[in-house]
Amino acid sequence: MAGRNHLYVPGPTNVPDSVLSAMHVPMEDHRAPDFPNLVKPLLEDLKKIFRTETGQAFIFQATGTAGWEVAMCNTLSPGDKVLSYRFGQFSHLWIQSAQRMGLDVEYHEVPWGEGVPLDHLEQRLRQDANHEIKALLICHNETATGVTNDLKAIRDVLDRTGHPALFMIDGVSAIGSIEFRMDDWGIDVALTGSQKGMMLPAGNAYVCFSQKALEKRHEARLPRNFLNIEDMIQQNKDGYFPYTPSTPMLHGLRRAIDLMLEEGLDNVYARHHRLAEGVRRAVLDGWGLELCARDPKWYSDTVSAIVVPEGFDARDVMKVAYYRYNLSLGGGLSEVAGKVFRIGHLGDVNELMLASAIVGAEMAMRDVGIDVKPGSGIAAAMEYWRDTAPPLEA
Amino acid sequence: MAGRNHLYVPGPTNVPDSVLSAMHVPMEDHRAPDFPNLVKPLLEDLKKIFRTETGQAFIFQATGTAGWEVAMCNTLSPGDKVLSYRFGQFSHLWIQSAQRMGLDVEYHEVPWGEGVPLDHLEQRLRQDANHEIKALLICHNETATGVTNDLKAIRDVLDRTGHPALFMIDGVSAIGSIEFRMDDWGIDVALTGSQKGMMLPAGNAYVCFSQKALEKRHEARLPRNFLNIEDMIQQNKDGYFPYTPSTPMLHGLRRAIDLMLEEGLDNVYARHHRLAEGVRRAVLDGWGLELCARDPKWYSDTVSAIVVPEGFDARDVMKVAYYRYNLSLGGGLSEVAGKVFRIGHLGDVNELMLASAIVGAEMAMRDVGIDVKPGSGIAAAMEYWRDTAPPLEA
Amino acid sequence: MAGRNHLYVPGPTNVPDSVLSAMHVPMEDHRAPDFPNLVKPLLEDLKKIFRTETGQAFIFQATGTAGWEVAMCNTLSPGDKVLSYRFGQFSHLWIQSAQRMGLDVEYHEVPWGEGVPLDHLEQRLRQDANHEIKALLICHNETATGVTNDLKAIRDVLDRTGHPALFMIDGVSAIGSIEFRMDDWGIDVALTGSQKGMMLPAGNAYVCFSQKALEKRHEARLPRNFLNIEDMIQQNKDGYFPYTPSTPMLHGLRRAIDLMLEEGLDNVYARHHRLAEGVRRAVLDGWGLELCARDPKWYSDTVSAIVVPEGFDARDVMKVAYYRYNLSLGGGLSEVAGKVFRIGHLGDVNELMLASAIVGAEMAMRDVGIDVKPGSGIAAAMEYWRDTAPPLEA
Amino acid sequence: MAGRNHLYVPGPTNVPDSVLSAMHVPMEDHRAPDFPNLVKPLLEDLKKIFRTETGQAFIFQATGTAGWEVAMCNTLSPGDKVLSYRFGQFSHLWIQSAQRMGLDVEYHEVPWGEGVPLDHLEQRLRQDANHEIKALLICHNETATGVTNDLKAIRDVLDRTGHPALFMIDGVSAIGSIEFRMDDWGIDVALTGSQKGMMLPAGNAYVCFSQKALEKRHEARLPRNFLNIEDMIQQNKDGYFPYTPSTPMLHGLRRAIDLMLEEGLDNVYARHHRLAEGVRRAVLDGWGLELCARDPKWYSDTVSAIVVPEGFDARDVMKVAYYRYNLSLGGGLSEVAGKVFRIGHLGDVNELMLASAIVGAEMAMRDVGIDVKPGSGIAAAMEYWRDTAPPLEA
Repeated sequence: MAGRNHLYVPGPTNVPDSVLSAMHVPMEDHRAPDFPNLVKPLLEDLKKIFRTETGQAFIFQATGTAGWEVAMCNTLSPGDKVLSYRFGQFSHLWIQSAQRMGLDVEYHEVPWGEGVPLDHLEQRLRQDANHEIKALLICHNETATGVTNDLKAIRDVLDRTGHPALFMIDGVSAIGSIEFRMDDWGIDVALTGSQKGMMLPAGNAYVCFSQKALEKRHEARLPRNFLNIEDMIQQNKDGYFPYTPSTPMLHGLRRAIDLMLEEGLDNVYARHHRLAEGVRRAVLDGWGLELCARDPKWYSDTVSAIVVPEGFDARDVMKVAYYRYNLSLGGGLSEVAGKVFRIGHLGDVNELMLASAIVGAEMAMRDVGIDVKPGSGIAAAMEYWRDTAPPLEA
Repeated sequence: MAGRNHLYVPGPTNVPDSVLSAMHVPMEDHRAPDFPNLVKPLLEDLKKIFRTETGQAFIFQATGTAGWEVAMCNTLSPGDKVLSYRFGQFSHLWIQSAQRMGLDVEYHEVPWGEGVPLDHLEQRLRQDANHEIKALLICHNETATGVTNDLKAIRDVLDRTGHPALFMIDGVSAIGSIEFRMDDWGIDVALTGSQKGMMLPAGNAYVCFSQKALEKRHEARLPRNFLNIEDMIQQNKDGYFPYTPSTPMLHGLRRAIDLMLEEGLDNVYARHHRLAEGVRRAVLDGWGLELCARDPKWYSDTVSAIVVPEGFDARDVMKVAYYRYNLSLGGGLSEVAGKVFRIGHLGDVNELMLASAIVGAEMAMRDVGIDVKPGSGIAAAMEYWRDTAPPLEA
Repeated sequence: MAGRNHLYVPGPTNVPDSVLSAMHVPMEDHRAPDFPNLVKPLLEDLKKIFRTETGQAFIFQATGTAGWEVAMCNTLSPGDKVLSYRFGQFSHLWIQSAQRMGLDVEYHEVPWGEGVPLDHLEQRLRQDANHEIKALLICHNETATGVTNDLKAIRDVLDRTGHPALFMIDGVSAIGSIEFRMDDWGIDVALTGSQKGMMLPAGNAYVCFSQKALEKRHEARLPRNFLNIEDMIQQNKDGYFPYTPSTPMLHGLRRAIDLMLEEGLDNVYARHHRLAEGVRRAVLDGWGLELCARDPKWYSDTVSAIVVPEGFDARDVMKVAYYRYNLSLGGGLSEVAGKVFRIGHLGDVNELMLASAIVGAEMAMRDVGIDVKPGSGIAAAMEYWRDTAPPLEA
Repeated sequence: MAGRNHLYVPGPTNVPDSVLSAMHVPMEDHRAPDFPNLVKPLLEDLKKIFRTETGQAFIFQATGTAGWEVAMCNTLSPGDKVLSYRFGQFSHLWIQSAQRMGLDVEYHEVPWGEGVPLDHLEQRLRQDANHEIKALLICHNETATGVTNDLKAIRDVLDRTGHPALFMIDGVSAIGSIEFRMDDWGIDVALTGSQKGMMLPAGNAYVCFSQKALEKRHEARLPRNFLNIEDMIQQNKDGYFPYTPSTPMLHGLRRAIDLMLEEGLDNVYARHHRLAEGVRRAVLDGWGLELCARDPKWYSDTVSAIVVPEGFDARDVMKVAYYRYNLSLGGGLSEVAGKVFRIGHLGDVNELMLASAIVGAEMAMRDVGIDVKPGSGIAAAMEYWRDTAPPLEA
C-alpha cells in the first residue's frame, strides 16, 4: 500500500526518526574501556524519567513481561503474599505472572473500565494487621481499558494505614508520558518497556528500585538468574553489563531521553494530556460514543478505548481501518474483545498525527455502518486543540 | 517539536522508509566490473516510468533546473528559436533558462491558473511556415498554480499542423504521478527531478530523449560539458557513468522504481487522481474556497493551489501551520505570493496522510481568522474517499 | 578517532550493512492480521540454522544468558540433577545459572584449554544406572578459551551408554558459524544469541527444542513466566508473540538468515574454518606463540585465544590496540585474565577484515615489547588463504 | 561475498557511519522559515575547509565535473585564453571541459608522473606581457597518477611575474585531506566534490570564490544557468537555495565538517601524510616497486599509483583483488591503463583500514605472479606507523 502506515496502537509507538538513526550504528565492544562513557550517564538520566534521585535504574534486555519478574524475583520469596487488583488484560497478566512465580496472590476483581478502589484497598490493608501482604502490585495505566490509577492517592492509603508493603508499579503505558514521581509517591519498584512512552522499539525493560526495595534482594529467595539485579549492580557500577547489551538500543535510549529532557518532562505530560483530551472530545462530543473508562477520573492520557455501539464488532472497524486506510488501531483484549477499539496517543505524537487516527477511525466506523457524522470527531478535537494551542512567539 | 513534521509541499515529497533504507549503504566502486548489474536494468526500467520503449533515459547528478539545460543544450544551437508559454513560476524559469543559454525564446503570457491555449498554439505553429521554431517547451504540470496541460492535445496540434518542432516537456511535478506517455504522445525530450513523484531526495535529474532528439546532438552547437549526453551515451552503454554517480541515489531509485512498478503505473495515476479529488472536495465543497486553477480541465492531480479569501495573507496560514502544527504547506510564488497556499499530494501518499494536511490547513486558516467550518474540509474529502475506496478482499 | 573501529571481539560481531538497513524500519503493529507473514516463515527458516526438521525454534527478546534458563526452566524441576563440565567462563556461568535456578548441578573441572573429556563422561553416565542425571549441559564452543567440543562424539557416548538425559547445548558462539546438526546429533535443546554467528545486535535468544524436550514442559516444575515456551507455542502457531517483539530485530533476522541460506550453511562453515586456520597460522607459524586451546582437536573456528609470553600482560596489548589502532580485541576472562587476548573470527568476516585484526594485534604486541617479527603473522595467514582460495570463475 | 567490501579507490571514499546516519532523515521543506538555521552556518563552516575568510563558498547539487564549469562560466567569456598543464586524466578532462565551453585553452604536456613545471610556467607568464591569459587552471592533486602540485610555489610564480590571471584549482582529491590554503595562497577559485576528502557520497560540488573571482561574474559572458553563482548568491544570503537541494547531503555535510573540525584540519593533514607514507614504505621498501610519481616532491598523500613490473597487467591485479578478496583498488586511466593500480588513502581512514588494502594488494599481486615477498609491504608500513604513532595518554 502506498504511503506510510498510521500506527496508533498503544505500543509499539512511533519511534522518532532521529532515534532510529541513532540506533543505526556499527556494533561495538561492550567491554571497551570507554564504554562506560555511554552507560553511566545513561543510567543516571534514566532515573530522571522515573523522577527519582534516591532509587537505582536498571536496563534489561527484555520486555515489560520480564519487568514484572524483575520487580518480584529480586524482592520476594516463594509463598509471599501480594495484593493486587484485576481490571484489564495487563493487570490480569501481572497477577498471572506472580502466580506462576510461586507467590500467594490475593487479587480482587474490579469492573473493566474502573481502577483500584481506594476504600477497598484501605480496608484490606487495615485488616492486614500482621503485615502478611509483602507487596502491592498496581498497574498504573491499564492499557487494555484506558484507565489510569491515582498513585499518589494509593500512596496516601499506604501511609494512612502505616502498611509497609512494597509499592510496585507497572508503568509500561505510563512512564515517560504521564505524571509519574517515584520519590514523591514512595514507589518501591517501577517498571516500563521501551516501546511506549520511551519511543523505542521493544526489547528493553527499564526497572527502577527504591533503596528499600534494593535491600530486599538480600533476603528474597525467588530463584533468579537472568533477571538478577545483583549482577547488574556489580557491573553497572563500573559502567558495564553482566551480559551483552543491545548497543543500538542504548544509543536509541540516549537519544530518546535527550528528546524528553529537552522538551521537559512536565511539558511531555502536558502535551499528552492536551492531545488525549482532543481525542476524547472526538469520541464523546463528536461521535457521541463512550469510552471504556467509566468516569473522567479514570481517563487515560495515553490510550483511549472506544466502545462501539451495540450490534457492531470493533474488530470489523479495525480490519477496515487496516486494510483500506493503512491505519493500525488497538483491539479489545479478552473481556472487551470486539467491544472496543483503542487509539494510542502516547510517545512521539502531535495533533496532526492524531488527526489521521481520528479521521481514519471515523471513516472505518462509517464503512462498517456505525452512524457517526462525517468530520464530527475531528472537528471537536481540532477546536479543542486550537483553543489550547500555545501562542506563537513573535 | 514532538511528533513528525507533516510535509505536504509539492516537493520534496515524503520518501518511503524503504527507499531511505535502500539508500543507507556503504560507498562502492563505480568502476567495479559488476557495477553495470545495477546500472543497466535501472536505465531500462527508468524508461518504463517515462513510458517509452524507443527513447533513451539518462540519470544526471543534478536537479530539474539542470534538466532544462540537458534538454536544450544537447539539441539546439545558439540563436535557435523556441516557443513557450508562461503561466507560473516554473514555466517562467524554464523560459529564463532558455534565454540565459542564448536561445531566441518566443513566449506568450497566459493568466496564472490556466495552461497552454491550444488555439493560440495551433495558430502560431501554422504561422511558422518556415519552421523557424525548433522546439516547443511545455511545462506539463505547473507546480506553482496546480495546472496540468493536456499533452496529448498539444501533440495533436503539432501533428495537425505538421510542425516538426521538438516537443520538450518539463515533467518535474508530473512524471511518475500522473499520466505521461512519451511514445504515445510523441514527446522528444522529457525531464523530471528525483524529489517529486519519484519519491527520492533531490539530487537527480532524469531526462529522456526520443531517437529524433538524440540525433540532434550531432548538430546542436550550444556549449555543453557536464550535461553532455554524448558522454553518458558512451559510458551508459557499458553500465557506467562519465563521472562519479551518487550510488545511494541509484539504490534509492532502484527501490522507488520497484515500488512504482509493483503498484502499477496506471494504479499510481489512479491513486493520485482519487487522492487529489478528495483534496479538491475539501477545498471547494467543504471550505467553499477556490483553487488557483480556473477550470476543472486544468486541475492538477499532484498539487492544489488554494486561494485564500480577500484580506488574508496565505503566508500567515503557512506560518501558523508550520510553527503551531508542524505542517509544511507550499507557498505562493511570485505573482501569487500571499494569495495561495499549496498542498502537494504526490508521491508516496495516502488518504490519512492528506487528512493531516487538510485538517492542519483548516486549523491554521481558522487560527488566522478565515471562516471555514470546523471539519468541513475533511468531511468532504473523507466521504469522497470512502465512496471511491476499493472493496476489501474477502 | 578517524576511520572505522576494527571489531574482532568474539561478539558482538560485525553486523552486515544490509542487516542494519533492514532493521531501520518504522514500528508496526505486532497484532496486525498480516504480521504472521513475517513471523511464520522466519520461525521455519530459523530451524534450518539449527539443522532441524523435527524440532521447534523460539525467538526470545532476551540474551544467551536467558537462553540457558529457557532450556532448563521448561524441561526440569527443582532439585533435578544435571551434569556439566567447567572449562571456561561461559561453561562456568551456565553452571552457575543452573545452581541459581535450584538444580542439583554435578560438574567436573577441566583444564581451561581443553573440552569435555569423553572417557570421563562415558564412565559417569554408565555409573548413573538409575538415570538420576536428567540433563547434560554442554557448551559447544567455549568462547573464553577458543575450545570446541565434538558434539557428535558426545552424542555417541549418550547412545553407547543408553542414557536418556536431555542433551542441552549452549551454541552461542557456534551456531550459524560452525557445523551444528540438531537432528543428526540428537540434541534436545540448543540455544544461541543474536550477536555472534547470527550477525545481529544483541537482544535475541534463539532456542530450539526437540520433540522430546518439548514434551518435558508438561512435567517440568521450575517456575517460569517470561521464558515460558508454552506461551510462545500458543502464540507462535498463529504467527504472533505473547508480548511485543522487537520488530527491527525480526526484520534483521530475516535478512541475516537470507544471507546465510544464500551463501549455504556448509559454505558458511567452510569459510569460518578457512579464515580461522589463517589466524592460527599467524599465531603459531608466524608469531611462534601458543593458543589457549591445547590440542588441534579443540581448535575453535570462531575464536582464537592467544597466549602472550611470560612476563607480558595481554591487557596491555588490548589497550594499545584499542587506543592507538582503533582495534577491539577480546580479553582473557577470569582464570585466563591477562594471559590471553582473543580474536573473534565469526559472522560476517573475510580475509582482509581479519588482516586488520592480525596486523593490529602484531603492532600492539610489538608496541608493548613482545618480540614478534614484523609481518610474520599476516604473511603466514595470507599464504594459507591464497593457497586455499577458490579459483576465479572465467 | 561475506564480509564488507574493502574500498580503497581514490573516491568515492569510505563514508563514516555517523555521516550515513546523519543523512538518513525524512525530507523537509527547503523553504521553511527555519531552514536557514541549517544552511547559513554550513556555508560559513565550509569556508573553513577551504581555509578562507574572505572568499565565498557554494554548494552545488552536482559533481566535480560541474565544479570545473562553475569556476569557468562565472568568470570567463567565450574565447578567453586560459593556461593549463596536462599530466594525468583529470587535468586532461578539465582542459577538455574548458575547450568544450568555448575557451581558448593553451595547455602543455607534462610526463604523467610529474606535475606543473615551475620554470616553464614562469617563462610562459613572463612572455604574456599583455596578460592575455585570463586564468591558470591547475589540478592540485592529479588523482590518476598520485601527483601533488605545490600551489604555494605556483602562487609565488604568479606573484613574481606580477601576472593577474585567475588562479583556479581543481582540489577534488586534495581539499579536506592535504594542506590547502585559499587565502594564504591567493587562490581565486577552488573546487572539490563531496566523495573524496569530504567523506560524503558523490552528488555535491563545493566551489569557493575569492572576492576577485566573484567580481568577474559581472563581465563574464559564458552562458550559465544551473551553475550560475548569481542565483546562489541571491538565495544563499538568506539561507536558501535557488532550487531544491538534497537535504540529506546537507545534513551529511554538517556532520562531515563537524568531524573534520573536531579532529582539527592540521591534524587531518598530518594523518593523511603519515598514513600515505606508510603506504609508500610498503610499495618502495617492502615490495620494491615504483610509484607513478617520479620524485618524492610529487608524492601525493591522498592516492598512490603503483607501477606493476613489466610483463604484468595491473588490471589482472585489480580483478583478482575484487573477485577473490573483496578489495576495490583504483585502476590506471588512459595513458597508464594496465600499468598502475591505485590505492586511495584519503578521507575517513586509519592504519588498519590501509592494512587491508596493502595486504590485499600483496595477495592479489602474488596471485597473478608478481614476486613480492609475503608480508613485506605491510611490515614496512606497520613499522613506520608504529614509529610515528602518538604516545598514548596515561
